[in-house]
Amino acid sequence: MYVAETKLRVRYAETDQMGYVYYGNYATYYEIGRVEALRRLGFSYRALEEEVGVMMPVLELHVQYKAPAFYDDELRLQVIIPELPQSRMRFEYKLYNADERLLNEGYTTLAFVNKSSGRPCRVPEELKKVLLPYFK
Amino acid sequence: MYVAETKLRVRYAETDQMGYVYYGNYATYYEIGRVEALRRLGFSYRALEEEVGVMMPVLELHVQYKAPAFYDDELRLQVIIPELPQSRMRFEYKLYNADERLLNEGYTTLAFVNKSSGRPCRVPEELKKVLLPYFK
Amino acid sequence: MYVAETKLRVRYAETDQMGYVYYGNYATYYEIGRVEALRRLGFSYRALEEEVGVMMPVLELHVQYKAPAFYDDELRLQVIIPELPQSRMRFEYKLYNADERLLNEGYTTLAFVNKSSGRPCRVPEELKKVLLPYFK
Amino acid sequence: MYVAETKLRVRYAETDQMGYVYYGNYATYYEIGRVEALRRLGFSYRALEEEVGVMMPVLELHVQYKAPAFYDDELRLQVIIPELPQSRMRFEYKLYNADERLLNEGYTTLAFVNKSSGRPCRVPEELKKVLLPYFK
Repeated sequence: MYVAETKLRVRYAETDQMGYVYYGNYATYYEIGRVEALRRLGFSYRALEEEVGVMMPVLELHVQYKAPAFYDDELRLQVIIPELPQSRMRFEYKLYNADERLLNEGYTTLAFVNKSSGRPCRVPEELKKVLLPYFK
Repeated sequence: MYVAETKLRVRYAETDQMGYVYYGNYATYYEIGRVEALRRLGFSYRALEEEVGVMMPVLELHVQYKAPAFYDDELRLQVIIPELPQSRMRFEYKLYNADERLLNEGYTTLAFVNKSSGRPCRVPEELKKVLLPYFK
Repeated sequence: MYVAETKLRVRYAETDQMGYVYYGNYATYYEIGRVEALRRLGFSYRALEEEVGVMMPVLELHVQYKAPAFYDDELRLQVIIPELPQSRMRFEYKLYNADERLLNEGYTTLAFVNKSSGRPCRVPEELKKVLLPYFK
Repeated sequence: MYVAETKLRVRYAETDQMGYVYYGNYATYYEIGRVEALRRLGFSYRALEEEVGVMMPVLELHVQYKAPAFYDDELRLQVIIPELPQSRMRFEYKLYNADERLLNEGYTTLAFVNKSSGRPCRVPEELKKVLLPYFK
């Protein structure tokens, strides 16, 4: 299992007229969490797309909303990679506010797709290598 | 069961560098579908918030992505209300492109919350009344 | 001069906690207005990118905000092409609500860029041809 | 004159199919810059809305785009408050990438509006006080 954390500050643009962060914007927060989780492993998602030629479209998204986030809140996003990816990769998320209240939790499943062929492929070796130490 | 359909045109702003609609933007599409589904029943979500004083935050979101939508695609969003709401309301979604390909499907569960007290409440009578004919 | 109009409905996602449409979202409305203005000429911006291989990045954006748009408002966006484009193309915008109140006005200047070379180019003949009748 | 700087990382959600940051998203970057510029003065925009009861809607936005920002770019946003605000407040922006290339520059003018009355007001004393040392 691999766990990483990212800090996020709620932007004005992300609120809606309820005064809450709009429910669809957490998908963006989750994406930021994924990318930062990988960056801390020394792995760049950008380089995966640009250099390895593999992209990772999302196959499934699930969010359970427990409490709202508000404008200017500083949030802590915990991202968990629960298993070594093969042809798919699962990320789990827990988002907390500054009072350590769990605001929402969710998961995404992502595929690996070859950019030039547009076809699914297996986890790139570059990614597998940095994850392997956490799954022994 | 109540079923309604809405047409949507993909905006440039909604695409990402994969050339697909960004995965989080489907939550916005689903919201549009909900509101239009209710509008066709003669029910205004805006009036619910403004006049009845009830808002409907999302408790749960689930999306299964099967194929991407592209810029300028004309999409057809089918929204299903499968059961008469009590303290919660479920909406189901199926999004199709112009070739009748199912792009994604999902569901949301929403609560009813009294705007002034901030507390959960039961389905407002105004909404129940317009839905009742579909659940006999 | 060429003038076209588009109808828009404000989405919940586009509001902010002031209860207004977030000021940055009008750039998206303007983009929709541009694309629909061209579509009414029988010209597809999508085909321009995909088939002609020319894209139109924005060089300049100006917005003057006079009154806010609110959730669920039905808006009327007037788009004006004031002159025949050469190496750049100017669009002007006036956004009205259902009470015919002018909410904001603005303009954008766009360039023509060859997608494969990444270099600026002149207005594609396909676009010039459909605009010409309006500039005699 | 008061000058402050903020770092920003481009999110995947902010790119479009050109592979650039969507032109409307810079308005959000500018908003983040404004808020962080004020925070460094010890002034919270959130507290202004919540405690002082004053909000700052945007009256005017201008952006000149010189070069695109790309996914995952680390950007440096310089925000300048060129004069002591009276009934309006001007912010100027310069956005640079990691190669110190100027990507775009712009300005916004904001009003002060009393939240309960909805009417324009003068700059709140709390804000004037923290700015005054920079305008002697």
